[in-house]
Amino acid sequence: MEKKIGFIGLGNMGINMAQNLINAGYHLMIFNRTISKADELDQASITKCKSPAEAAKGVHAIITMVADDEVLKETVLGEEGILKTLPKNSVHISMSTISPETSQLLAKHHTQAGNSYLTSPVFGRPEAAAAKKLWICVSGDQQAKAIAKPILENLGQGIVDFGETHGGANVVKIAGNFMIMASIEMMAEAYTLAEKNGIDRLKVAEFFGSTIFNAPIFQNYGKLIANKQYEPVGFKSALGYKDARLAFKLSQASEIPMPAVSLVHNRLLTAIAKGWGDTDWVEGIGRGVTEDAGI
Amino acid sequence: MEKKIGFIGLGNMGINMAQNLINAGYHLMIFNRTISKADELDQASITKCKSPAEAAKGVHAIITMVADDEVLKETVLGEEGILKTLPKNSVHISMSTISPETSQLLAKHHTQAGNSYLTSPVFGRPEAAAAKKLWICVSGDQQAKAIAKPILENLGQGIVDFGETHGGANVVKIAGNFMIMASIEMMAEAYTLAEKNGIDRLKVAEFFGSTIFNAPIFQNYGKLIANKQYEPVGFKSALGYKDARLAFKLSQASEIPMPAVSLVHNRLLTAIAKGWGDTDWVEGIGRGVTEDAGI
Amino acid sequence: MEKKIGFIGLGNMGINMAQNLINAGYHLMIFNRTISKADELDQASITKCKSPAEAAKGVHAIITMVADDEVLKETVLGEEGILKTLPKNSVHISMSTISPETSQLLAKHHTQAGNSYLTSPVFGRPEAAAAKKLWICVSGDQQAKAIAKPILENLGQGIVDFGETHGGANVVKIAGNFMIMASIEMMAEAYTLAEKNGIDRLKVAEFFGSTIFNAPIFQNYGKLIANKQYEPVGFKSALGYKDARLAFKLSQASEIPMPAVSLVHNRLLTAIAKGWGDTDWVEGIGRGVTEDAGI
Amino acid sequence: MEKKIGFIGLGNMGINMAQNLINAGYHLMIFNRTISKADELDQASITKCKSPAEAAKGVHAIITMVADDEVLKETVLGEEGILKTLPKNSVHISMSTISPETSQLLAKHHTQAGNSYLTSPVFGRPEAAAAKKLWICVSGDQQAKAIAKPILENLGQGIVDFGETHGGANVVKIAGNFMIMASIEMMAEAYTLAEKNGIDRLKVAEFFGSTIFNAPIFQNYGKLIANKQYEPVGFKSALGYKDARLAFKLSQASEIPMPAVSLVHNRLLTAIAKGWGDTDWVEGIGRGVTEDAGI
Repeated sequence: MEKKIGFIGLGNMGINMAQNLINAGYHLMIFNRTISKADELDQASITKCKSPAEAAKGVHAIITMVADDEVLKETVLGEEGILKTLPKNSVHISMSTISPETSQLLAKHHTQAGNSYLTSPVFGRPEAAAAKKLWICVSGDQQAKAIAKPILENLGQGIVDFGETHGGANVVKIAGNFMIMASIEMMAEAYTLAEKNGIDRLKVAEFFGSTIFNAPIFQNYGKLIANKQYEPVGFKSALGYKDARLAFKLSQASEIPMPAVSLVHNRLLTAIAKGWGDTDWVEGIGRGVTEDAGI
Repeated sequence: MEKKIGFIGLGNMGINMAQNLINAGYHLMIFNRTISKADELDQASITKCKSPAEAAKGVHAIITMVADDEVLKETVLGEEGILKTLPKNSVHISMSTISPETSQLLAKHHTQAGNSYLTSPVFGRPEAAAAKKLWICVSGDQQAKAIAKPILENLGQGIVDFGETHGGANVVKIAGNFMIMASIEMMAEAYTLAEKNGIDRLKVAEFFGSTIFNAPIFQNYGKLIANKQYEPVGFKSALGYKDARLAFKLSQASEIPMPAVSLVHNRLLTAIAKGWGDTDWVEGIGRGVTEDAGI
Repeated sequence: MEKKIGFIGLGNMGINMAQNLINAGYHLMIFNRTISKADELDQASITKCKSPAEAAKGVHAIITMVADDEVLKETVLGEEGILKTLPKNSVHISMSTISPETSQLLAKHHTQAGNSYLTSPVFGRPEAAAAKKLWICVSGDQQAKAIAKPILENLGQGIVDFGETHGGANVVKIAGNFMIMASIEMMAEAYTLAEKNGIDRLKVAEFFGSTIFNAPIFQNYGKLIANKQYEPVGFKSALGYKDARLAFKLSQASEIPMPAVSLVHNRLLTAIAKGWGDTDWVEGIGRGVTEDAGI
Repeated sequence: MEKKIGFIGLGNMGINMAQNLINAGYHLMIFNRTISKADELDQASITKCKSPAEAAKGVHAIITMVADDEVLKETVLGEEGILKTLPKNSVHISMSTISPETSQLLAKHHTQAGNSYLTSPVFGRPEAAAAKKLWICVSGDQQAKAIAKPILENLGQGIVDFGETHGGANVVKIAGNFMIMASIEMMAEAYTLAEKNGIDRLKVAEFFGSTIFNAPIFQNYGKLIANKQYEPVGFKSALGYKDARLAFKLSQASEIPMPAVSLVHNRLLTAIAKGWGDTDWVEGIGRGVTEDAGI
């Protein structure tokens, strides 16, 4: 009974997360704009729904993993939105990368409807989602966390609690994505400096990635940047730019000048303007650096 | 016999390195502008010298670990410089953070004098030097590397070879220090964003430092930045600024626009202008971020 | 008959513009949030109104000069907004500094209501408004321009037509305000450079203002910046920041990386964060430059 | 007798200045690296010299207008430099765009030699030089100014005195060139914003150039930028970059963070890296802005 939950958003991340929940024995009430995407999943474990409202009917929890603030707001507040049907005392587990402002707005609506909203964005690329290696940040009510916990444990390697403020975990997610972009920028600059001085880019990347910068960000991205290996596209420049905008907007709302955010924002805006929106963000940033350097 | 080497520069790094060489059985011909600094070392294992030339007399290798390009040039080319006495076939192991330009200039002079120059800057703070945990980057002639290797093995946990170009290892060192500064900047911005949104700075730092950014740079500096813990001073803002200038100058010489270098350069120049030159560079950067944010 | 027009917004600019219209023989149907402000005007020439709708009733033209996009949207589209009463074939002369997006939205509503919308922002400070020295940029329908022309001629020294696109004149206004901010920034940097090198700031400002930069922006602001004369407050840093945000948002929407916009945006965001929102924008920028320089 | 002066440097500026001096009745002792350039001048009024020393022999004044600090230092201090022959009490009128540091160094040498050094850089393009419309900034000893005055009056429309510090006028010149570059950048950004929003670039440039920005910089450069008219080359991007470097170096030496200087520096460094060094600086900057905007 308790094993039936709603699930909205079968993108590169969502499809892997859904699979893990099915593996754990959950039955998913699925809504996706392109519902044929659900054909990849075990049909006995899912019910295809025609709207968010249908996916939310009768479940004690529903997960959303969608593109951006606007889509999420429509998914919750729209005519056929979650709020229309989600039972009292159920929880909406909101895993998309969105602004804290939107989380606060939606939390208010859920509270008024007698159910609850849990902010729970994740760190990790699709491979990490498939391997249950996501890092999940949560913030919100204790009760919502309690309901969500057994579900989220099937999706990642750790759940970190950032308090009760609904937007809290969004801030951490936005900050983290900014730090990843800034890391890509700094590596692109540094490795191009090496290249122009006759030093092997990859050798430098491997040195840093195995010593003072021996973290996944510098190891995995470092290799891609060093090799100018821009295929396959893991995360699009257009999505990176969306996140840079979120970071910039948050810096405005928080009244914090963040020059490094401006830098990566402008780098990715340049990528968009040059028509590179569909490239991997490593290309969007890395190629910007090398083209400006005349190589 | 072979165990007698020259050693110039007993700063925070040099004193620890000298101690490790003594522990390994070397006798050091030491020159330091403030020679009383040598009193901290075992007197039986050292000879205090009155000039670089005296320290270089009769040794097969001499290490320099001094403040900057100008001091090093004076140390080598000055009236009482190393070049006056260093025996043929000996090697000058140049471990300071300097420009590749200076390495090339000095290598030329050493070659003309019949001895050799090995670029070998290091990564690591004084504690790492004391613990023999430095990472040593080398570039230059094979013969020089062969002579230096048994000596350098007493100073660090790894020696990485960046080829035969004399300035090569300097470029890697400058790139790495830039990456550290940029990391401090991005953490300072991100954690201040968290703070202004009611999230605990340290909690965020610990999360990133134990997950996607689990590298020493983000763990050690991350904690200092999160706690605004600016004492004791490990590496002065004035020295960080010196390194930012080296990076900027190299970006000019290499014809690579490096906006992240401009950013950290201007951040540290602001610190200098505000009179914070003697603070730790974590303060020079971190306090700049928080003051601009009005906290 | 035709001499009765609506007028909304008695701020520093509006009050001077209203006075000039009264001097030209117009009777003004006035709405202002703080209606007591209208006491400064000749009571025989005005009618105080309780809502935008009341001010728009029976007029062939209505001028709005309000704080920002949100206030203007409420003024037009709100429950007691202009649209409720403005007669067919009348024109809304929209003189506030707002985004082109808002102009396009409002123009659509006016067209549907059978009347028209004329974008007509102005360049000039309150003194220029009082002296009928404003420069007025217009864009929109020819018919609307024809109706507005005899009215606008009482407010400025020139009306410049930027075509039929409703947002066109807004883009020019936003671009111009950005150029003013960037000019203030460059002067602040240059004159501080002079000061730190022992040269009189004012002498430099007067030299440039009377030779290659002999334009009002460099003459008037140049003197204020040189003298660090920040009183009286003519245009608040908070308003300058609002305009920097408009410019930044427009650069995003237009997909143009504008690093100089980022620069002035962050300078004014710093001013806001430091609590200088109510200072003149010359102080917001100029003091930021000198404080960063340690003076 | 007094009408014989030395003249070194027949570049685009120098050749026009030399012509004006000849027109005023002076006989010029000319040195230029490519001496054939002097063939364009009235041969009866000049003496071609084989070295700076020869040009300085027996004159009461000598003008230098050369490429950069290095060339000027060689011209004065070199083996066949001015200092070898310039008579006591004569004055070296130094009109090149150089650093204040170099002026101070040369002034010291001249003082030791019993003659004097007058810093006197100019504002104006070659056409202005030809039309005697230069603005001349001077700094240095009163005596030197008195000797130079009757000579300089034949070259420009005004001489402005910036005090006795030798580097003073250099600082003003560097600050001014920075302001011109920053103006070109801001116009390029603003007019590209107009273009992408469907507004005629030239119309916007003409509006600003005839109203609030009605100064030569915005009128002349404004038209070139608006029309993307990059030929003929008046002032090369490589020279603009040289001046941006001077400004940056001076900001370091003066301990003033100047973000607008960083911006134009990086813009021109990008131009150099992309191989546009020989284009006009309007192209170096303007094309950088449009390419980043994808047009």
